Amino acid sequence: MKEIRIGLLGFGTIGTGVVKALQNNAELVSQRLGARLTLAKIADLDITTDRGVKVDPALLTTNAEEVISGDDIDIVIELIGGYEPARSFVLKAIENGKHIVTANKALLALHGEEIFAAAAANRVEVLFEASVGGGIPVISAIKENLGVNSFASVFGILNGTCNYILTRMTDEGADFSEVLKDAQANGYAEADPTFDIEGVDTAHKLALLISLCFGTKIDFDAIYSEGISGVSALDIQYARQFGYALKLLAISKYDAGRIEARVHPTMIPLQHPLADVSGVFNAVRLVGDFVGPVMLYGRGAGMEPTASAVCGDLMAIGRNILAGGASRSPAMGCPPETMSTLEIKGMEEIVSQYYLRFAATDQPGVLAHISGILGRYDISIASMIQPERKAGGPVPIVIMTHEALEKNVRSALAEIDQLDVVLNKSCFIRIESDLD
Amino acid sequence: MKEIRIGLLGFGTIGTGVVKALQNNAELVSQRLGARLTLAKIADLDITTDRGVKVDPALLTTNAEEVISGDDIDIVIELIGGYEPARSFVLKAIENGKHIVTANKALLALHGEEIFAAAAANRVEVLFEASVGGGIPVISAIKENLGVNSFASVFGILNGTCNYILTRMTDEGADFSEVLKDAQANGYAEADPTFDIEGVDTAHKLALLISLCFGTKIDFDAIYSEGISGVSALDIQYARQFGYALKLLAISKYDAGRIEARVHPTMIPLQHPLADVSGVFNAVRLVGDFVGPVMLYGRGAGMEPTASAVCGDLMAIGRNILAGGASRSPAMGCPPETMSTLEIKGMEEIVSQYYLRFAATDQPGVLAHISGILGRYDISIASMIQPERKAGGPVPIVIMTHEALEKNVRSALAEIDQLDVVLNKSCFIRIESDLD
Repeated sequence: MKEIRIGLLGFGTIGTGVVKALQNNAELVSQRLGARLTLAKIADLDITTDRGVKVDPALLTTNAEEVISGDDIDIVIELIGGYEPARSFVLKAIENGKHIVTANKALLALHGEEIFAAAAANRVEVLFEASVGGGIPVISAIKENLGVNSFASVFGILNGTCNYILTRMTDEGADFSEVLKDAQANGYAEADPTFDIEGVDTAHKLALLISLCFGTKIDFDAIYSEGISGVSALDIQYARQFGYALKLLAISKYDAGRIEARVHPTMIPLQHPLADVSGVFNAVRLVGDFVGPVMLYGRGAGMEPTASAVCGDLMAIGRNILAGGASRSPAMGCPPETMSTLEIKGMEEIVSQYYLRFAATDQPGVLAHISGILGRYDISIASMIQPERKAGGPVPIVIMTHEALEKNVRSALAEIDQLDVVLNKSCFIRIESDLD
Repeated sequence: MKEIRIGLLGFGTIGTGVVKALQNNAELVSQRLGARLTLAKIADLDITTDRGVKVDPALLTTNAEEVISGDDIDIVIELIGGYEPARSFVLKAIENGKHIVTANKALLALHGEEIFAAAAANRVEVLFEASVGGGIPVISAIKENLGVNSFASVFGILNGTCNYILTRMTDEGADFSEVLKDAQANGYAEADPTFDIEGVDTAHKLALLISLCFGTKIDFDAIYSEGISGVSALDIQYARQFGYALKLLAISKYDAGRIEARVHPTMIPLQHPLADVSGVFNAVRLVGDFVGPVMLYGRGAGMEPTASAVCGDLMAIGRNILAGGASRSPAMGCPPETMSTLEIKGMEEIVSQYYLRFAATDQPGVLAHISGILGRYDISIASMIQPERKAGGPVPIVIMTHEALEKNVRSALAEIDQLDVVLNKSCFIRIESDLD
C-alpha cells in the first residue's frame, strides 16, 4: 500500500489530537484513501511531556528542520500557532516542495498573501480547514462546492470562548468577569484571553472567510473588531425582553463593489437559527446567489474536532498526490494573481438597527430631550422601555431604533452624553434583524 | 484559457438552472477555476420549449448519443432522473471515458454499485452532491473533510416537499390532504407525489448517506420507509403539548457492526436544531468520533440550489482534470472493492420512545386495561394526557412511553386494538429524544 508521509510541527493540544486520530482510525483512513498516512516526524521544543498518546520516540525531535526539510516528508502540518517562527517554517517548507496543512488563522490573516503566493510558485497546496470553525467543513464548502456562487454575505459565530461566555451570561444572568474567571478555570478560556474576548481571533477568521467568498485580498487592520468584555448581563436581559439574543458575530456583506467587515456583539432575533448556537459551538451562514442561505454548524474548537479538520486536509492532499495532480486548487479558491482588492466600508457608513441604553436622572422631560436629539439625527425609535426605577439612582432608558446610519448614531450619542440629565456614558449595540 | 467541455442530458428544471448558473457566473467560475466550463451539448426530447435561458440552438439535440459519445465532451451531467434510460446513458458515458455529475438519487440508490464499479474500472469520477440536500455540501463533507471520522449516526430532514407539508400542518393546524392539494397547486409537490410523501425519495437519499458514512453497500429494500400521508394534524398538536415537533426523519445509527436504516415521521424535542428546519429547507446531522456533531442546513431542492451543487461538482472534476489527476476519489469515498455489507437491523429490534394515541370508549377502567397490556410488554409510561371529551364520541388517550422495544410496542398495540373499549386502530409515532 502506498504511503503519504507527514511531518508535524507543534505537538500541543491539536497536534496530540491529530496523532490520536491518525492512530485510532488508521485502518479507516487507509481504506478510504487507498494509502497509508504515516506520521514520519514530530517536532516540538518539548518532546518529553507525556501527551497521553503513544509515539515512537524516534519520531520526536526538537529540530523543526527535520520536518521542514526532511527528504521523506510529503505534507507538513503547522500547529505551532502565532506569527513566528510559524511563518518562516511554513515558507521554508513550501520552498522545499512540501504541502502545508495548518490551523493558524492569525498567520494566514496577516501573512496569507505571502504564503499563498509562495505556494502557487512552488506548486504545493496550503489547506487550512481547521483554522475557521474547528471541525466544520466551511472553507472547502466555499472553495469547492459553492464555487459557482456569487456571495451576498457571510457571517457567523466563530469563537467558542466568547460564545461559551455569552451563553452562560444569558443562562445565569451572570456578569462577564465572573463567567470569564470560571471559563479560565475550566479550560474554556486561555490564561490571557485577549485575542478571544476582544474579537481578534474572530476577526482573523472573518478575514479568511472574506477572501474566500469575495476573492479579495484584505488588510486585516481594516476589519472593525469589538469584543465582548463590555457586554453587561443587563443588556442581555433587556435584549431578551425585546426578543433578541446577544452573540459575538463576524459579519461581512457585499454592497456594490465594497464590503462590510466587522466583528461586534450583535443582537439577533431569538427565532434566528444562529440564536440557538450555544456554548462552544460555532456556526457559519453564507448566502449565495444560487444556493441561497446555507448554514454549517459544529464544534468550533477543541482537540478532536480541530484534528478532524486537519486530517481531512491531509486526506485531500493525499488524494491529490495519489491521483498525480499536485496543486489541485489555489489556497483561496482562485489564483492569487486574480484576487481583487475590494474596499472595506468604514463603520460610520454602516446602516443598522441599534439598541441604545441610557442612564438618566429620574425627572420629567428626559425622554423628550433624548428622543429630540435622536430625531434630529434621523434616528427613529421602534420601541422603548424604562425597565425599573430605583429611588434616587439613575433611570435606565432602553430604546430599539429603526435602521439608522452609524455615523448619526455616534454623533447623537455624543450629544446626548453631554446632557446634564444623562449620568453615564450611553451604550449601543448593533442589531441584525435581516440576516438572510 | 483552458476549457472543460460539458454535455447535459435532460433540459428540465435543474438543467435550466445549471445553464443559468454557468451563464450568469461564467466569469466568476473561470476566475476561480482558471479554465472555462463550456456547455458543449444539451440533449432533451423537447428542444423547442422556451426555458427562459438563451441557448445557441446548435447546442441542442434530441439525440443523447451526441452527449454520451461526443468526442469533445469531458463531463456528462445526467439530469434525466429515474432509472432508465438514465442508467444506460450513464454507463455508456462512463465506458466512453466521460466523468459523470448527477442529481439522480433513485438511480444511485438502486444501481450505484454497478455505476461506481464501472467508474472505477474506467478511471472516471461520478459526483452526485446534488442528489442529497440540494445545495447543501453534505456528500463531499462526508467523503472529504470528515474522512478521518468513524461515524456513530447520520440523520436528517431530506425531503423538502414533506417538510413543507408538515410545517404548514403545524403552523395552520391543517390536514394533510388539504395542504398537499395546496402544495401541488403551488409547485411544492409533484402531480404524483408518491415518491416524496411516502418517504421513498428520503430513503433513496438515506441509502447514499449510509454508504458514504459507513462504507457499506446497502440493499435499498431493506431500508424501512414510512411516509407522512398517515400523519394527522391532531398528532402534531398533541406532540407540541408534550414539547415535540413532528418531522419526517431519515435515521441511521451504527450499533455494534449493524446499522439502523429507517425513514418515518418522528417526534423530536422542540429545542433540537432540526425542529427549527421549516418549509422546503433540509438539514443533515452527522456525529463522528472526532468531529462530534455537525449540522449542515440549506435549501434541499429547487432549480437554483440544486444547480449550485451540480456546478460545484463540475468545478471539482474540472480541477482534477486541470491538475492532471483524473479519478481523484472514488464515488463513495472508498474504493468499491473495499466496501463492506453491514447488516441492517430489523425494525422489530429498534429501541425507541413512542407516542401512542388510542381512541377509547368513555367509561371507567379503560386506561387500566391499556396500561396493563403495555406493562406486560415492558412498556413504561412517561406521561399521559386525555385531551378532550366529546359527549358520546370516542375519548382520545395519548401516551408518551419510555424507551421500549418496537416488537413489544407492535404486539401490545395489536392486543390493545382487540379490546372492546378501543374503537379505532391505535396510532404510534416514534420519538427521538437523544439525537446527539
